[in-house]
Formats: sequence, C-alpha cells, structure tokens
Amino acid sequence: MIEEVLQERAKIIDEAIKTYLPVTYPDEMYISMRHLLDAGGKRLRPTALILAAEATGGVAENVIPAAVAVEMVHNFTLIHDDIMDEADIRRGFVTVHKKWGMPSAIISGDALYSKAFEILAESKSEPARVVESIGLIARTCTGICEGQWMDIDFETRNNVVEDEYLEMVEKKTAVLFAGALKTGAILSGAGKKEARALWDFGIFVGVGFQIYDDVIDLITPEEILGKAQGGDIMEGKRTLIIINALSKGVTIEALGKTNATKNEVSVAISTLKKSGSIDYAMDKALDFVDRGKSALSVLPDSEAKSLLLELADYMVQRKY
Amino acid sequence: MIEEVLQERAKIIDEAIKTYLPVTYPDEMYISMRHLLDAGGKRLRPTALILAAEATGGVAENVIPAAVAVEMVHNFTLIHDDIMDEADIRRGFVTVHKKWGMPSAIISGDALYSKAFEILAESKSEPARVVESIGLIARTCTGICEGQWMDIDFETRNNVVEDEYLEMVEKKTAVLFAGALKTGAILSGAGKKEARALWDFGIFVGVGFQIYDDVIDLITPEEILGKAQGGDIMEGKRTLIIINALSKGVTIEALGKTNATKNEVSVAISTLKKSGSIDYAMDKALDFVDRGKSALSVLPDSEAKSLLLELADYMVQRKY
Repeated sequence: MIEEVLQERAKIIDEAIKTYLPVTYPDEMYISMRHLLDAGGKRLRPTALILAAEATGGVAENVIPAAVAVEMVHNFTLIHDDIMDEADIRRGFVTVHKKWGMPSAIISGDALYSKAFEILAESKSEPARVVESIGLIARTCTGICEGQWMDIDFETRNNVVEDEYLEMVEKKTAVLFAGALKTGAILSGAGKKEARALWDFGIFVGVGFQIYDDVIDLITPEEILGKAQGGDIMEGKRTLIIINALSKGVTIEALGKTNATKNEVSVAISTLKKSGSIDYAMDKALDFVDRGKSALSVLPDSEAKSLLLELADYMVQRKY
Repeated sequence: MIEEVLQERAKIIDEAIKTYLPVTYPDEMYISMRHLLDAGGKRLRPTALILAAEATGGVAENVIPAAVAVEMVHNFTLIHDDIMDEADIRRGFVTVHKKWGMPSAIISGDALYSKAFEILAESKSEPARVVESIGLIARTCTGICEGQWMDIDFETRNNVVEDEYLEMVEKKTAVLFAGALKTGAILSGAGKKEARALWDFGIFVGVGFQIYDDVIDLITPEEILGKAQGGDIMEGKRTLIIINALSKGVTIEALGKTNATKNEVSVAISTLKKSGSIDYAMDKALDFVDRGKSALSVLPDSEAKSLLLELADYMVQRKY
C-alpha cells in the first residue's frame, strides 16, 4: 500500500521538478542542478509534506511548490556533502563535483538552495503563513549545517556521548523531514497543536530512521548494499552502535582504519553483534519511530494520517 | 559627507551583526561565519538598503534586520568564491577555507545563507511585503550563481562579447546591490514605480562600479592596490577592457599567462592604454553611473535620496 502511494507521489514530484526547475541560460548550470534531482530517489520528504497538508485539511495541489522546494533543499545538501566526502557516486550516478568540478558543484548547490526559497515564496497560502514556513525552512537549513559541522567534528573525537549523537542526527537528518511535515501543515492552515504534532512526528521518526540506516549500513551484505560493508567503521563514524560499544569498553580494532581488510571489518561486526550494541541501536530506532507515531494522536483520523503512520513503519523496514 | 555617512551606518550594521548572529553551539561554526563579517568592509549594500528605505518614507530601524541579511548574503558569496578561487587572503585576513578547511568553509557559507533568510523572515513589515522581499532576494541569489557560473565559463572562451560581459557583471555584482535597494523600498511600503527606480539605480550603478573596479585593478600600482598589478590579465579574466581590446584586434601577450613577468604585465597595460580600451571602459563606467542616478528622478527629494546620489559618485571615485 504505502509503496504504491510513494510511487504515485514520486511521479507527481518528478513532474513538478521539471516545471519549477526548467533548464534555462546558463544551461549547463541548470543541467547540473537537475542532475541528482533527475536521478530519482524516494521523495520521502515531499511526500511527507503533501500527506501532512492532507492530514490537516489542505489540498495537495497547493503545497506542491513547497514539496519541490524541500526536495531541492535536500538535493542541495547532497551536492555539497558529496564534495566534502569526496564521494564519486550517488544514486548510481557520478556526483556533481565529479562531473562538473568542485567550483561548479558549489555554485550548483547554492543555486538549488536559492531556487528553493524562490519557489517557497510563491506558495499559495496566506502571506503570514508563507513567511512562517520560509522562516521554518531557513531555520531547518541552519540546523542541517550545525548537524553537518558536528558530524565532522565528532570524527576526530573519542568521547562522543549518546546525547550528542542524538542531537547531531536530529539536526543532520530529522529537522528537514520534520520541517517538511510542518510546512505542509502551516501552509494548509493547521492550528499550532497539529503543526507541532507533525513536527514531533518528523523529529522522532527522522532520528529513528537515521539510527536504523546506520544499522542497515553495518549488517547488510555488500551484494545487497551496493557498497563495501561496514564503511562507517573504516571511516571512524560515531554511530549509535559504535558509541554504545565504546561506552561498554568494547575494543573495535578496525574503527577509523581506512585500509582495514574485509576480514578485519567482519571481526568488528561480530564483536559489535556480541556486545549487544547492534540490538541496542535497533531497539532505539524502533522506539523512536513509535514515539513519533504517538505524536500523531492529536490529529483527526484520515487516510493521509494512516499513510503517515505507514510511512513511519516503512522507513524502518527497508532491507537495503 | 558621504564617507562620514558610510562610517556611521557601518557602525550600526557592525553592532546589528553581533545581535543577529551571536556565537552559539557549535561555537566554531558561528565563529567561522562571523570571521569575514567581523573583518569589516564598507557595508555598501546594507547602507544602500537603509537609505532606500528612508528615501521611500521608511524608518531605518525597521529594515536593519534586512540590511544585516543582505550583508550576510554578500559574505556567504565571498566565502564560497574564495574556495573556488583558492584565495588565501580577504580584507587583510586569512580566508575561511584557509583557516577551517574546505569542507567547513562550504558549511559556513551555507549556514550564513540560511541565517540570512531566517532574519529576512523576521522583518517588521506587512507579511505580503516580507514574502515579496524574500522572493526578490532569493532570485537575486540565483542570479549571483548564474553570474558566477558565466564568469568561470568565460575564462576559457576567447569570443566573449560586450553584451555577455555586461549580463555577467549585472548578475554577479549588480543584482545584490539592486536587490538590497529594492528590499529597503518594498519593506517600507514603497509603490511599484519607486521600488523599480531603486532597482534600476542599483543595476546601473552596480555595473558601473564593477567596470570601474576592473579599471582600478589594472591601473593602480601594487603599493597602493595591496596586490600584484594586472592580476586579471594573468588570470585571463574577460574584463570589458580586454573584450574591447580583443575586438579591435589588439594582441595582449600576457593574457592568461599565469607566470607573466612584471615587465610583460607592464607591456600589456601600456598596450591597453594605447589601444584606448582603458578609457573606453572608464567612460562606460561613468555613463552607467549617470544612467543609474537619472533613474532616481522619480523619487521625491530627500536627504536619503541625495545621499544615494552621492554614494553612486563615491563608488566610482575610490582610488584604490
């Protein structure tokens, strides 16, 4: 059910992207801005925004520009993240900086960012609500930057505690999901309580999703994951699993060892499994998603609300 | 007179920056965002924004947040430009990417960008006018990206014509100056005709300023300029002077020769002087500024209007 809904909505978003981001002069810049957007993706954030609008009495059509804007913000962060991480491949395509060079990729991301605000400013809603949603998305973007800064900072620290990790993940991943949901509500005339519930839903589910993603990245075999297993371990990432294991005094030899062998990574994963840290993280992920779902109890029942609840479960059920 | 006014306004902006961009967690990120902002600068854009507000019946106090936002946008573009140009020094200080590294400098610029929209969204004006000014600044930022993209593109082309150069300069430099002026007018309740006049003023004066800047960069001795004379020639920049000379069939041996000797650069400058291309560019710069000043004729006389006219002249009178 939810997968079909996601596919339907993704198609609508795909079409709207072409409408709101046509290729104009200088053509190559706009082609670079469309590069990742056209490569697809699940469109979780814009779909959540539209469902939030519908769950609070709004109409999908009126919030499609905002949905496109949020997807653009997401893609802008991916373009800049890929430069920082020196990533070559994203969504099966060569990354923007690999194709157009680093200077052009910086501009491409910046331009996507401003286009997002251009489109948001054209939202069909009361002006005061448009201003509110722009302020919200702007604060969200600042939050993403703070989270990204913390993530980089943590890689060189050995004493990151769970609360710091959760704050970083909330900012880096959850706020844009929550911001999308709340924007859908604000632009649809929702009351403060409903808008707040959708924000909370987004934060909890978003954090749960990121924790789950870290678990999946660790336990999924290479042939399914499409990249080397345990990459986070070699990169020295302070995921919840690692933080939990380190707090128990577990030694992970391959941590931060960029040239670790497959066998060394396997040993590390076994160690983490035995230590109970993978189960710990998985339980936490599911717990966060449950808390998110509870937040929606203040909303009246509707098809959109049911779909949001399904979406939350779906986000921690993917096997890849 | 205008220099004193600039100094007074710059002080107000300096103080407002501290208020609107306090250093909070993660501290180092906010310190990096303040790095260039605290290094000073003439604050031409925010000052123009405040004068435009006053010239259209507004009050400086109400548009100070917007003025700070525009200065932040300007500084965000400088941080990212310095990464692209691999510049080490800006305003006498080490550049952000040199001090914090490239990944952090990308984030620092991105965060300044979103902070600018956060602050704009808090402007004290009718919501519909706030939305209009946000849309304007967002389009302006897209324009800056387009201009920057064109500038990079032009460096590898030999057939750039004057109209292309003027479009590039309008986007890269003039739109933010014009956008600042029009924002001051919009937020102060100005009519469409007045707001448009301030935009036109900004575009013409902004283009004139950039052409003048290219001339100054060429003819000012190293001991006054603070950097090697004729850097644009060695970088192969398609300035109006170069485009004009090339269109007349003049040969500039040192063009794009990054290891050109001082003597070779001197010869190039002499050649450009003899060809009349420097005079041609200087005349164009002054002509643009005059056209900008004429655009203000639709505004009622006021002290602020007089100061804007003085500001325009000042911008093409600097000797360094």
